[in-house]
Amino acid sequence: MDLTAKHQPTIDRAIKAIHERTFFAQYPEHPSPKIYGEEADKAGREKFQAQVGKKFEELLQAPTDVWLGDEESPYLQEKLNIKYPAYSANNLVSKADEAFHQWRKVAPAERAAILVESLERVKARFFEIAYATMHTTGQGYMMAFQASGPHAADRALEAIAMGYEELTRFPEKVVWDKPMGKYNLVLNKAWRAIPKGVGLVIGCSTFPTWNSVPGMYASLVTGNPVIIKPHPGAILPIAIFVAELQKLLKEQGLNPNICQLGVDSFSQMITKELAEDPRVKLIDYTGNSGFGSYLEGLNNKVVFTEKTGVNAAIIDSVVDIDKVIGNLAFSLSLYSGQMCTAPQNFYIPASGIKTPDGVVSFDEFAQKFADNIKGLVENPKAGPFVLGAIQNKNTCTRVDEAAHTQGKVWLSSGEIENPMFKNARTATPVVLEINAQNKEGFSRELFGPIALLIKTNDTSQSVALAKEMALAHGAISCGAYTTDAATKELIADEMSLAATPVSFNLTGGIYVNQHAAFSDFHVTGGNPAGNASFTNPEYVIKRFTWVGFREPA
Amino acid sequence: MDLTAKHQPTIDRAIKAIHERTFFAQYPEHPSPKIYGEEADKAGREKFQAQVGKKFEELLQAPTDVWLGDEESPYLQEKLNIKYPAYSANNLVSKADEAFHQWRKVAPAERAAILVESLERVKARFFEIAYATMHTTGQGYMMAFQASGPHAADRALEAIAMGYEELTRFPEKVVWDKPMGKYNLVLNKAWRAIPKGVGLVIGCSTFPTWNSVPGMYASLVTGNPVIIKPHPGAILPIAIFVAELQKLLKEQGLNPNICQLGVDSFSQMITKELAEDPRVKLIDYTGNSGFGSYLEGLNNKVVFTEKTGVNAAIIDSVVDIDKVIGNLAFSLSLYSGQMCTAPQNFYIPASGIKTPDGVVSFDEFAQKFADNIKGLVENPKAGPFVLGAIQNKNTCTRVDEAAHTQGKVWLSSGEIENPMFKNARTATPVVLEINAQNKEGFSRELFGPIALLIKTNDTSQSVALAKEMALAHGAISCGAYTTDAATKELIADEMSLAATPVSFNLTGGIYVNQHAAFSDFHVTGGNPAGNASFTNPEYVIKRFTWVGFREPA
Repeated sequence: MDLTAKHQPTIDRAIKAIHERTFFAQYPEHPSPKIYGEEADKAGREKFQAQVGKKFEELLQAPTDVWLGDEESPYLQEKLNIKYPAYSANNLVSKADEAFHQWRKVAPAERAAILVESLERVKARFFEIAYATMHTTGQGYMMAFQASGPHAADRALEAIAMGYEELTRFPEKVVWDKPMGKYNLVLNKAWRAIPKGVGLVIGCSTFPTWNSVPGMYASLVTGNPVIIKPHPGAILPIAIFVAELQKLLKEQGLNPNICQLGVDSFSQMITKELAEDPRVKLIDYTGNSGFGSYLEGLNNKVVFTEKTGVNAAIIDSVVDIDKVIGNLAFSLSLYSGQMCTAPQNFYIPASGIKTPDGVVSFDEFAQKFADNIKGLVENPKAGPFVLGAIQNKNTCTRVDEAAHTQGKVWLSSGEIENPMFKNARTATPVVLEINAQNKEGFSRELFGPIALLIKTNDTSQSVALAKEMALAHGAISCGAYTTDAATKELIADEMSLAATPVSFNLTGGIYVNQHAAFSDFHVTGGNPAGNASFTNPEYVIKRFTWVGFREPA
Repeated sequence: MDLTAKHQPTIDRAIKAIHERTFFAQYPEHPSPKIYGEEADKAGREKFQAQVGKKFEELLQAPTDVWLGDEESPYLQEKLNIKYPAYSANNLVSKADEAFHQWRKVAPAERAAILVESLERVKARFFEIAYATMHTTGQGYMMAFQASGPHAADRALEAIAMGYEELTRFPEKVVWDKPMGKYNLVLNKAWRAIPKGVGLVIGCSTFPTWNSVPGMYASLVTGNPVIIKPHPGAILPIAIFVAELQKLLKEQGLNPNICQLGVDSFSQMITKELAEDPRVKLIDYTGNSGFGSYLEGLNNKVVFTEKTGVNAAIIDSVVDIDKVIGNLAFSLSLYSGQMCTAPQNFYIPASGIKTPDGVVSFDEFAQKFADNIKGLVENPKAGPFVLGAIQNKNTCTRVDEAAHTQGKVWLSSGEIENPMFKNARTATPVVLEINAQNKEGFSRELFGPIALLIKTNDTSQSVALAKEMALAHGAISCGAYTTDAATKELIADEMSLAATPVSFNLTGGIYVNQHAAFSDFHVTGGNPAGNASFTNPEYVIKRFTWVGFREPA
């Protein structure tokens, strides 16, 4: 069956979902045997284990003598010793530039269908990708499965669908017939969506597929070849995506270098050389703000960034304080605060939080919050799986330092034992109190399981500070709790001016951290936390140029 | 009648036109008495004449003691002595920032309707604007009417419609209902299109409304207040647009400072101060490349530029050489080459141009071209009206210098007499021969009536040079003549990679210079001639940010 006929219905369904923005998922998020097969989990785990210590030989890139790989499992604190073929930046860009002239001539519908087919093939490897993600990022099993597998594939499909819609938004050709009085002026007009050129996707260490596939697929669907430059600490999950796509491209008689993996090592990074190559026209980046701002400043590139932010939780008034605290404690603890959407700055009025049962004082809130986190992390059936492991040693250092430099410590960080991985690198959340006047103390991202309880004069100060932080330092999420309609609108209006999405009054099984494909615009692109959004129209439109042609009929 | 009900059909029609891209015009381009009324022309001329030498007192901006105005008529070579109220950059931005918070809360449909109504009111002043345009830009009467009146209004409507479509592309709110197995997770989600902030529109001296209203209306429809900073040499045409909009805003109970005119003088420009104000988030600019590139380099701004380019005509093979030459001669002569779309570099193979009647040699082409231009400009019934007058004295100097620094002169520039304006500043086209090897001689824009006939080895060199110039220095148009299908595709493909639109085989009453609203993407945004296009989706999308809100249902 031809791929276009096979996948056009999926693409159409995805476009519809983008417009309706109600719940839609192409790829089931539950790692259930009923959905993915009885053997899928075991087979995936074994496949991952068999890869450890070996060369990753699935890529269809040119033979090379250079094999690199620095990955280390945060659960084992041991090197994975998986080696990947490595190439110079110039070699990668030259091969991409060559592949460009083939790929750009493939029709948008055909490109989109090939890309959807690649996701279908990756689907068969979701469990293997889950284990690869656990042992590079430190994510818990469930998050590793969901984020790197189905959720990433949904985000990729979203980018494909959005791109396809924009590419086909205007007619390929029309007859332009202008009445001129005595005669008509008739022109044949045609338009082509011209891809910009070589794309570069720079991955991060914590979400190696979820944060990379949107840019990868957005560039590809719009006709640009891409080079995936993974973080040296988290290669395997995205390498599997690339390998599956390369095999499919070859099957389709296309150049596998349309999508290359450009691996480097901590000791010799090729990112800058790739980014500065004049043939590289598009850059997608997730990572720290310093490097992101450097990329945004490069000339003659279209750059999409997701950088760091200072996320707020604004607590004004609640219906059920315990449910709220349970929700916030989980949000902070999930993957040990290593999500770009995790809350950090908790703004609480000095006068306390209004509830139907009276005011909960600042101190009561702090104590309950600390107790709830303690209960969660010390629960052996929950803690290790919710917290996962710490990807980067520096995060542990940051947690330690936070406790020494800030105000009152409501909860100290510690280690917990993971029943499956005795050597897991862990750090439980630290909760600190800080006064609103001590602005310097909370004016930067403290990546990791660090919560700052900021005592404000009142909710309007809370909102003003949350907005100020978002405008100055970026923000990707904001959780807000209020039972008052006017306060709610104040928060929505003020945070909207700082281009920060707000989740109101979340309790139960939904967390401020979670952004859903086809519905939530992840990172708005309107504050310093990043200049791009998964996946708004801008995210795909900037990857190609409309060029018109006309001729008398 | 309420404006939304009145104008929604027009907006819907315009959106349809944008998608169909067949001929559409809301505003008739013929200054015919039957369309615009028997008295319209005379009344417009008299209104313009009555304004000369006086204060322009129609604006609803704050009282001021400072009145400025440097405009001079290229037809009279005399100062117009019209004075406009002037304000400091800080004053303008502060007032815009204040108006922002009112305008952003007006619903998109209402904003769009108010803006369409403003165009309807401007329509009644098209003739007055035409005379104002003639006597600031030097355009001939017909172009001044069409470009500054109906064509500009169509471009403005296009921007309003595109903006409105994007603003209403996603639902305002939905119920998001996710099956979780044992229960459903139900969230109310809502999205708002948040405008970026104060917009600045920097005008040029040659097309004071056509090049400014797209950015002005695109920023306004998306909820941003704008400051129009006209070129000191061409204020009145756009001042009339601003005045009409301000009066309408006031009628609607809105702050007229939602759209301000920010006039300055040649001796004391406020453009940089406006552009660098951190509250200014959006900049639209038409003008020279140096200043455009400076603006593009400003941090934390969304900048839309139309700069300069080196436009090509590629001549390979033709059906009727005389018709082709007639078309090209007119394109070059129209408004004395002062259009951003005028051809400059004419690439002709040394072996000549193939025709059904045999090869036309390079020299024959050059002679015929020079003769045709001579015939056109010396025809008293055509020349003065096609050429118009020279806006800027420097253009005359450039024409003079060109003749001295380049190769063989096929046609010298001279002055012609305008029967209506004895003092008109004129310069007829100069035509020079230059060898393809002398690349430096044709590697820059020579704004004005200057044609370079470049002798190439063959058409493939012609195409390579045209592409190289477009990639290095920008290009806004390309005219190409070929009767060979493969050559045509080569030209389309290569020029598309330089993001340059191509008009093939134009003869008769259509010229490479003319870009139509609702059909042609003017300036692709993909080469150094500019980073924005009238009006592709990107042109409006970047003016606002999607921000989402969600809450358990």
